[in-house]
Amino acid sequence: MASSSSLYLSQALLARAVYLHGSSSDRVSLSFPSFSGLKSHSPCKAATFSAGSRRRGVSTSVVRAAAVETLDQTTEVSLVEKSINTIRFLAIDAVEKANSGHPGLPMGCAPMGHILYDEVMKYNPKNPTWFNRDRFVLSAGHGCMLQYALLHLAGYDSVQEQDLKNFRQWESRTPGHPENFETVGVEVTTGPLGQGIANAVGLALAEKHLAARFNKPDNEIVDHYTYVILGDGCQMEGISNEACSLAGHWGLGKLIAFYDDNHISIDGDTEIAFTENVDQRFEALGWHVIWVKNGNTGYDEIRAAIKEAKAVKDKPTLIKVTTTIGYGSPNKANSYSVHGSALGAKEVDATRKNLGWPYEPFHVPEDVKKHWSRHVPNGSKLEAEWNAKFAGYEKKYSEEAAELKGIFTGVLPAGWEKALPTYTPESPADATRNLSQQNLNALVKVLPGLLGGSADLASSNMTLLKSYGDFQKDTPEERNVRFGVREHGMGAICNGIALHSPGFIPYCATFFVFTDYMRAAIRISALCEAGVIYVMTHDSIGLGEDGPTHQPIEHLASFRAMPNILMLRPADGNETAGSYKVAVLNRKRPSILALSRQKLPQLPGTSIEGVEKGGYTISDNSSGNKPDVILIGTGSELEIAAAAAEDLRKEGKTVRVVSLVSWELFDEQSAEYKESVLPASVSARVSIEAGSTFGWQKIVGSKGKAIGIDRFGASAPAGKIYKEFGITKEAVIAAAKQVS
Amino acid sequence: MASSSSLYLSQALLARAVYLHGSSSDRVSLSFPSFSGLKSHSPCKAATFSAGSRRRGVSTSVVRAAAVETLDQTTEVSLVEKSINTIRFLAIDAVEKANSGHPGLPMGCAPMGHILYDEVMKYNPKNPTWFNRDRFVLSAGHGCMLQYALLHLAGYDSVQEQDLKNFRQWESRTPGHPENFETVGVEVTTGPLGQGIANAVGLALAEKHLAARFNKPDNEIVDHYTYVILGDGCQMEGISNEACSLAGHWGLGKLIAFYDDNHISIDGDTEIAFTENVDQRFEALGWHVIWVKNGNTGYDEIRAAIKEAKAVKDKPTLIKVTTTIGYGSPNKANSYSVHGSALGAKEVDATRKNLGWPYEPFHVPEDVKKHWSRHVPNGSKLEAEWNAKFAGYEKKYSEEAAELKGIFTGVLPAGWEKALPTYTPESPADATRNLSQQNLNALVKVLPGLLGGSADLASSNMTLLKSYGDFQKDTPEERNVRFGVREHGMGAICNGIALHSPGFIPYCATFFVFTDYMRAAIRISALCEAGVIYVMTHDSIGLGEDGPTHQPIEHLASFRAMPNILMLRPADGNETAGSYKVAVLNRKRPSILALSRQKLPQLPGTSIEGVEKGGYTISDNSSGNKPDVILIGTGSELEIAAAAAEDLRKEGKTVRVVSLVSWELFDEQSAEYKESVLPASVSARVSIEAGSTFGWQKIVGSKGKAIGIDRFGASAPAGKIYKEFGITKEAVIAAAKQVS
Repeated sequence: MASSSSLYLSQALLARAVYLHGSSSDRVSLSFPSFSGLKSHSPCKAATFSAGSRRRGVSTSVVRAAAVETLDQTTEVSLVEKSINTIRFLAIDAVEKANSGHPGLPMGCAPMGHILYDEVMKYNPKNPTWFNRDRFVLSAGHGCMLQYALLHLAGYDSVQEQDLKNFRQWESRTPGHPENFETVGVEVTTGPLGQGIANAVGLALAEKHLAARFNKPDNEIVDHYTYVILGDGCQMEGISNEACSLAGHWGLGKLIAFYDDNHISIDGDTEIAFTENVDQRFEALGWHVIWVKNGNTGYDEIRAAIKEAKAVKDKPTLIKVTTTIGYGSPNKANSYSVHGSALGAKEVDATRKNLGWPYEPFHVPEDVKKHWSRHVPNGSKLEAEWNAKFAGYEKKYSEEAAELKGIFTGVLPAGWEKALPTYTPESPADATRNLSQQNLNALVKVLPGLLGGSADLASSNMTLLKSYGDFQKDTPEERNVRFGVREHGMGAICNGIALHSPGFIPYCATFFVFTDYMRAAIRISALCEAGVIYVMTHDSIGLGEDGPTHQPIEHLASFRAMPNILMLRPADGNETAGSYKVAVLNRKRPSILALSRQKLPQLPGTSIEGVEKGGYTISDNSSGNKPDVILIGTGSELEIAAAAAEDLRKEGKTVRVVSLVSWELFDEQSAEYKESVLPASVSARVSIEAGSTFGWQKIVGSKGKAIGIDRFGASAPAGKIYKEFGITKEAVIAAAKQVS
Repeated sequence: MASSSSLYLSQALLARAVYLHGSSSDRVSLSFPSFSGLKSHSPCKAATFSAGSRRRGVSTSVVRAAAVETLDQTTEVSLVEKSINTIRFLAIDAVEKANSGHPGLPMGCAPMGHILYDEVMKYNPKNPTWFNRDRFVLSAGHGCMLQYALLHLAGYDSVQEQDLKNFRQWESRTPGHPENFETVGVEVTTGPLGQGIANAVGLALAEKHLAARFNKPDNEIVDHYTYVILGDGCQMEGISNEACSLAGHWGLGKLIAFYDDNHISIDGDTEIAFTENVDQRFEALGWHVIWVKNGNTGYDEIRAAIKEAKAVKDKPTLIKVTTTIGYGSPNKANSYSVHGSALGAKEVDATRKNLGWPYEPFHVPEDVKKHWSRHVPNGSKLEAEWNAKFAGYEKKYSEEAAELKGIFTGVLPAGWEKALPTYTPESPADATRNLSQQNLNALVKVLPGLLGGSADLASSNMTLLKSYGDFQKDTPEERNVRFGVREHGMGAICNGIALHSPGFIPYCATFFVFTDYMRAAIRISALCEAGVIYVMTHDSIGLGEDGPTHQPIEHLASFRAMPNILMLRPADGNETAGSYKVAVLNRKRPSILALSRQKLPQLPGTSIEGVEKGGYTISDNSSGNKPDVILIGTGSELEIAAAAAEDLRKEGKTVRVVSLVSWELFDEQSAEYKESVLPASVSARVSIEAGSTFGWQKIVGSKGKAIGIDRFGASAPAGKIYKEFGITKEAVIAAAKQVS
């Protein structure tokens, strides 16, 4: 088997660990078991076996060492196990009280969780956003009680006993899946499978980038790991393959992923749908792969694997940890029934007996509490040391320190917006995708946290930062990221970058229609408050010959309906600059910029300030806020509205032209302002947009007319499609006459 | 390297082929070159080299055989090359005339294209939908001129010379990417990368299923291959990994994929973002992997690889074919500039010189034409033989023949709709996901083409067909498909199944929110007219504790805005049955059924007929089509509207309750019918739906009120969220009083 060569080191370390500590053990029995998803051993004797699976055998070997090595000290194994069981029962009890949740993963992953939070990771519970902390992502987010239990034990204020008791309740800080915006100490929002591992790739990219950019031979100011736990579900999702292929390509050596290999998914044994060789796939993706065969009690195996992973600096590491889902539950372990439901009172009792747990629900034994209590002072110490280090850095490298500080505080440099380009009607006509590139290249000079790229369309999306090279394995200090044709992974990686530090402003790009490939990641941006900038070009039938597979129709509407996201469709240079201003300022709300492939004129009346209001008048020959008709356009169709207005005015009509570049921003304006743009008394309204008319009734009212496209596009030169689809000045004029 | 073991057979066959035919060769020089993306050889001497790439070396070896073995005859290699160059120049000329398109892939893949369509595949050009034809999918859809050229040469009526000249023009049959609904002979719609290979997995699944279900020892009535060409872009997309993992799991031995390994993507060399070991990944996924090192002129290598692939019956095969993108263009070959733009007149001339092509644009030399002309009679013969075989089958196995005929003709069994369950208000309250399962299990007994499954949520989506087992490698005759957690692949596989034969009715399932993972595939369903049934459960905040990552908000709106798709949200048993009736009847339009997790009562007034109209009155105490207020609901909120109406009626109001189960179907009704349900004169309207209000203004008008959710959800028990979000009877009553 392909991965076998990777295993020798962890096994050697394991043997050494046992050798070193064996003498102090009262009960040592060591062997290297053949692969077994289930072990029978004290204190979990009663776990059931499903016979006949080709991937499981019954093993009687027991791997235990009386005392084990930790990072800082030697902890008695009995205390380790007590701590692990505390985690298990906090999860069991919380799920039981909520009568809802997923106990199986926390029960199986408690050993790796314990080792990570108690022995390996550096963090400061009293300042969970300390910049140089290790990041942890629970990609298998349904197992969130694992993370809540760990945050609770580690001393995070966000997860008190009461919070555990409020698991999955209204306004609790312990929602049903990890949500960074609800629970301080949770880095990213997971639950939708595969997102977390891709976020983690973004976090690790961010660390590698900052380390390369800011570390000095005498001061490695950026230096942390990113740890992930992912499950079979994450592995099956395409997004994880995309992101992990990039992680391998980029050589993200400080990314360490634990694959909870428990052979159970919701529908039963993973054999029914998942028989690929994961080890071999990850080796193909350029990862270092280690297999911990006994994830249930093989604490030293886990520790050795982490050491080995850290020693491999040029590749990310996948530690496949074979565990038993619901470990400790005598009747439900190793079955899908323990995945997503409370155990039930009877089985909770049986599990308490089986694991020798005499305590009340939610109880943390005193010795466990005492043991974990060191993390608060230790964390403060770690941060204080780092602060001192940064003070030294600041002294010696003041310029770099200011940039880095901007990234980790999120404070934008004063006057950054002066870099935004401005345009006059005399400026040359241009595609907004090109104008976007002018903005990106202007902004990158003043925004230290701006970096990003395209899903293999940089030359079409116009996203290259000309003053920078490519972020690559050996040039991670650069700021052009090459995502390949991996839209979904790209979006989730950008979420990770954005959430690494508040001053990061990641952008990513593809054709607007291919937001369909990354919609799940975009939705998480909106939900988790990651201010990613989505640079989406070729935003309509205006792309022409590529045809309906490439022409967005319903996409503007579909994002206008999504909460907490800004859908911006600028019409020209000023509006593109305004869109960037809005996007940069909205650090807790992602922005999507829909940009044209085709050239557009610079329109009189457009402005950055107008864009900031979402909708505004660009021209008007009426008085008293009572035009005969209001023409409303966005993006490439604003030009058509403006041209129609000119013709109508020649015929004596009073016509207002409104640019509705962002519906969300317009909605947020005062009633007075909105009335000044779209007065209630004027029902003669015509909108034009080369996309679905769905939703436009809100703007044009029941007496107005929305011109748009409620069918799929077509393959032909763009001008021809516009004409055939009736997205024309003539159509606007006819409609205006009809409604006014 | 992992794949090296797979190579020996193709190399051995190649050696044998050369040995057998070598004696008739005037110029034979054979060696097994080390890996080289570029070969220098006649007649393409001028291709340029990019130096310094670790994956390329310069090889001087030439693999040519004077005469080569074909399926039916021996064709002179000079004619083969002439045919291949014809394909190349048809592509070059069409792109040049359109001044738009992608010449690079057709130029590089012409050899494999020629061998497939001229030597390997069985099809009938005069009946392109002949059931037992081999299927071909160009997953790298941008290279569609390859397929159009092949269809033209093979004698398909759909692609005449004039069609080639109209490439990418308005209303042409040769759009910018392959579209099955525009071009007869194109099986599926590709262009969005990765969709095609996943479609192909669906096509191969369909064949394997039908063969297992209908073939008899004395009559193998179902027996065809599925061929695909995919590129680097397809490989990078997560969807392809999902689908290929399933293809390996299912052992789809008759799926043969050619990976056009040309090292160039739009942004340049694939090295900037794609350095994984594809061979090894596919071996990990359970595929047989063969490497054709010289895809440019190694015709025998290609042939040998296909033979080898066919010999491997328990695994799908990936044939990695190393080619030169834009082969033959002296200045643009092997560069991204040849990927997606016309060569330009000068380079076209240079290519004509380089490849020795003296002909006018669009010319097919007589000997090439003559050579290909045999496919029309041969195809008729193949079909006639099969028809005779089917006649024998029908005679001996009449029952099976009737079922199979239903699948390949698409004619539904008479009276099938009688199987739909019906409900009365006294029927027990139930979740619509459970009612959906009753429908599926009733329908599978009468619809031979119904099959499907869930993305690892069968027990939550309630999609198991109880009278069938699992479709698996060794039980492919069964009808429950286990997709694993691979929503995107699932959707595209179902598109492939639907387009395999018109009588297939594939369904697939996940939580409604995870349509975000598969939206690109759903959009292709709508575009390519694949009547897939999307069974989407847990359709609102009503799922409760899993929280906002799992609660759809904008999803109903986002699909209502999508063309050619039915978004159905049934409220109870009758409406669920009605939704299935609609979904089954709409074979050229996909349906999405949004179904509840929570129990819902059987409401008086609901009906299958009502659902067929999209919107209808379920109760009304007014007369003269003039109620005081109209309450409009969908799905789980129709119950709330009905309850509010009861209360309002007690207060003396006349109230109509309308179920708007499908906006699209309602839109299609006559103006009279619509007026009878939502009379223009009644502006007092209140809608209630546990989702975004976006779009509802069209229904409730500017004086009405839409009750919905314009924020993300929350983690808490469902009842609590409904109350806190104001999705209540009380809110409806208050709004009704406000507007009436």
